[in-house]
Amino acid sequence: MENLGLCTDLYELTMAQSYLEHGKTGRAVFSLFVRKLPDNRNFLVSCGLETLLEALERFRFGDEELRYLKSLGRFKDFFLDFLRDYEFRGNLYAIPEGRVVFQNEPLVQIEGSLPEVQILETLVINIIHFQTVIASKAVRSYLVAGGRTLVDFGFRRAHGLEAGIYAARACYIAGFAGTSNLEAGRRFGIPVFGTVAHSYIMVFDSEEEAFRAFAESFPNNAVFLIDTYDTLEAARRTVKLAREGVPVIGVRIDSGDVEKLSREVRRILDEAGLKEVRIIVSGGVDEYRIREWVSSGCPIDAFGVGTKFITSDDAPHLDMAYKLVEYEGRPKVKTSPGKATFPYRRQVCRFYSGGLIDHDEVVVFGEAREGERLVRQVLRNGTLTEKLPSLEEIRETLKADLERLPERLRGLEKADFKVIIK
Amino acid sequence: MENLGLCTDLYELTMAQSYLEHGKTGRAVFSLFVRKLPDNRNFLVSCGLETLLEALERFRFGDEELRYLKSLGRFKDFFLDFLRDYEFRGNLYAIPEGRVVFQNEPLVQIEGSLPEVQILETLVINIIHFQTVIASKAVRSYLVAGGRTLVDFGFRRAHGLEAGIYAARACYIAGFAGTSNLEAGRRFGIPVFGTVAHSYIMVFDSEEEAFRAFAESFPNNAVFLIDTYDTLEAARRTVKLAREGVPVIGVRIDSGDVEKLSREVRRILDEAGLKEVRIIVSGGVDEYRIREWVSSGCPIDAFGVGTKFITSDDAPHLDMAYKLVEYEGRPKVKTSPGKATFPYRRQVCRFYSGGLIDHDEVVVFGEAREGERLVRQVLRNGTLTEKLPSLEEIRETLKADLERLPERLRGLEKADFKVIIK
Repeated sequence: MENLGLCTDLYELTMAQSYLEHGKTGRAVFSLFVRKLPDNRNFLVSCGLETLLEALERFRFGDEELRYLKSLGRFKDFFLDFLRDYEFRGNLYAIPEGRVVFQNEPLVQIEGSLPEVQILETLVINIIHFQTVIASKAVRSYLVAGGRTLVDFGFRRAHGLEAGIYAARACYIAGFAGTSNLEAGRRFGIPVFGTVAHSYIMVFDSEEEAFRAFAESFPNNAVFLIDTYDTLEAARRTVKLAREGVPVIGVRIDSGDVEKLSREVRRILDEAGLKEVRIIVSGGVDEYRIREWVSSGCPIDAFGVGTKFITSDDAPHLDMAYKLVEYEGRPKVKTSPGKATFPYRRQVCRFYSGGLIDHDEVVVFGEAREGERLVRQVLRNGTLTEKLPSLEEIRETLKADLERLPERLRGLEKADFKVIIK
Repeated sequence: MENLGLCTDLYELTMAQSYLEHGKTGRAVFSLFVRKLPDNRNFLVSCGLETLLEALERFRFGDEELRYLKSLGRFKDFFLDFLRDYEFRGNLYAIPEGRVVFQNEPLVQIEGSLPEVQILETLVINIIHFQTVIASKAVRSYLVAGGRTLVDFGFRRAHGLEAGIYAARACYIAGFAGTSNLEAGRRFGIPVFGTVAHSYIMVFDSEEEAFRAFAESFPNNAVFLIDTYDTLEAARRTVKLAREGVPVIGVRIDSGDVEKLSREVRRILDEAGLKEVRIIVSGGVDEYRIREWVSSGCPIDAFGVGTKFITSDDAPHLDMAYKLVEYEGRPKVKTSPGKATFPYRRQVCRFYSGGLIDHDEVVVFGEAREGERLVRQVLRNGTLTEKLPSLEEIRETLKADLERLPERLRGLEKADFKVIIK
């Protein structure tokens, strides 16, 4: 898929054609925001902006796309010509990636001629929504893991290949150490992790033979998967091999009673003097289990976090909308019950108290007077206003925000945050 | 992304290199199956096979991929050469797309040399898992909608662009009439639907002007979105315009008390003789709400189904695994608690009673004697054994299966189905 022009809903294009036919081509502003946080999210992490900017570059209509649209029999030639020439040349304002954000805060605001910005709706929501969902889920594991290593093992159960790749990006921003996903490793320079699956152990005539073979192939990365048959037996086998000089840097437990097994395995390893051998736990891991294990003092050094995080299974979507807030300088509001919107382009002003985030105010853009201003102009007439931050810089941005996060928002229990709309 | 070789987890490649180093290159069989259905799924719909076969063709390693792998410093030159020459040349057995399937049934079984089939694990799970998740969610709406039209409106909140595109394919297989997603329309020939968003209504000086403008632009597709300001007022406005000869084929309600609004809107339209004007409902629609509205007799003709279906929010993942079941003709089983596997390549035999599906038996492949055999060979030495069915044929396959589905499995409440493993 070279051009992304068809990555949109049909109605964006029917609206755009009708706008053009009726002279509705004035300056419009659309705002992307989350109306209400899910019950189990105290804050969100803004994520996906760089990916959106790349996609905007590719949001074009070539021959193949135009041929398809013509075949639908709904679009007029003047409109297909408009699409052929389309490239986004407007302004884009955004809260940078890696910021802690809340309900009703404009993550992205796009300004341009009405048809030009209308047809971006589906693309903008799709890209920012997904990475924000994943970063906001992943950061919860980061906050409860107390510095323990977190690795994304979710690729296989992500909603498609692309989802797996961008989820790896989002969780790296959220503080994970890396991913098992090689394409994400290549594309974003994220550290990659991985050793063996149960099939590997099962193919050899014995578990011991499998461990030996793996250590021989990868002496610097010898992590033994110890739960294929009997976990404690395998831990004792690990000790035996280590005593013979077989290299081992860690053991992985992927099933069973982790609370109990991790302690017993640790004891077996420690009693043999293998204090430096790390215990890695995977299989059904999420922030709730991590909190439980960490708070009860389980001797776990690293977590492989997979399915539950990569599908954000307790909140797989956000109530995120892309709404018209201004047209030809005039305010636009929708009054549907539960879906009311606030007019005009906006700035988010953040106020701190004792070094911690106290509250945010969402004010009309030109009227920001006090507080830290979160929204920045990213595109002017379609062109970047400044170099985008690297992934490492985005990680640092988030770490700094997390340090200023009040204690009540850091936990897994619901806590509220005041966003004042002026 | 031309080559998909890096769409895998690092450990698939570390295992493969070690297999080659230790002569573990015998004939292996891996089986893809779901261990246990989610609480709110009575059956699954097999989906994604064609997409997997396309991806297998592209699962190659070119210069860029090999350069990245070399940079990791873990892989030996002989192994990078193996990857450079890699193309899948083994056998693939599968239950065709659009079949009703259950726990422990092998959806895909892949046979080839151990390294050759091991490294496909992540790709195979990712692709089949996602489309099976979505088709299995979408079919629930289809079963409770009682013939009413269902359209996928979910693209914007899918987990990425690719997820939106393949979800449109999966829900079309599950009986949806079409999608708003243009790329899915182009790629798969799925019918596309769509009219206008609230922004369109808000840009005009009045709702009436907006309705007139849209009907002028699209006289054959004039569906009015009536909930931007006051839904009943907008319904009366629709009547007024229709009386003036403005074309209108439907109205869409996207918020508010649908139960009440749909009845009142229907009454307003009917009293004006507009019996043929259809009522379309969108916004937070899922199978539970459809069932509620249909069973209470709400006069709704079509549903736009979005976020909840496209994220499969009540079951965003399945306990799906790709497990080694046979190596060099010998059975392979894992004995981890709760994760036990059954050895050998398998056939699924389906038994009917009174025209309805009664139970399934999962038997060792060559030992199938009775019942309908669901598993077919799809690839022989990497080559298709027969032409794949069209999307329309897959839809028909599923419709036929749904007609043979016992009543208890058709509903939204949990019901069990007997799968006997022999």
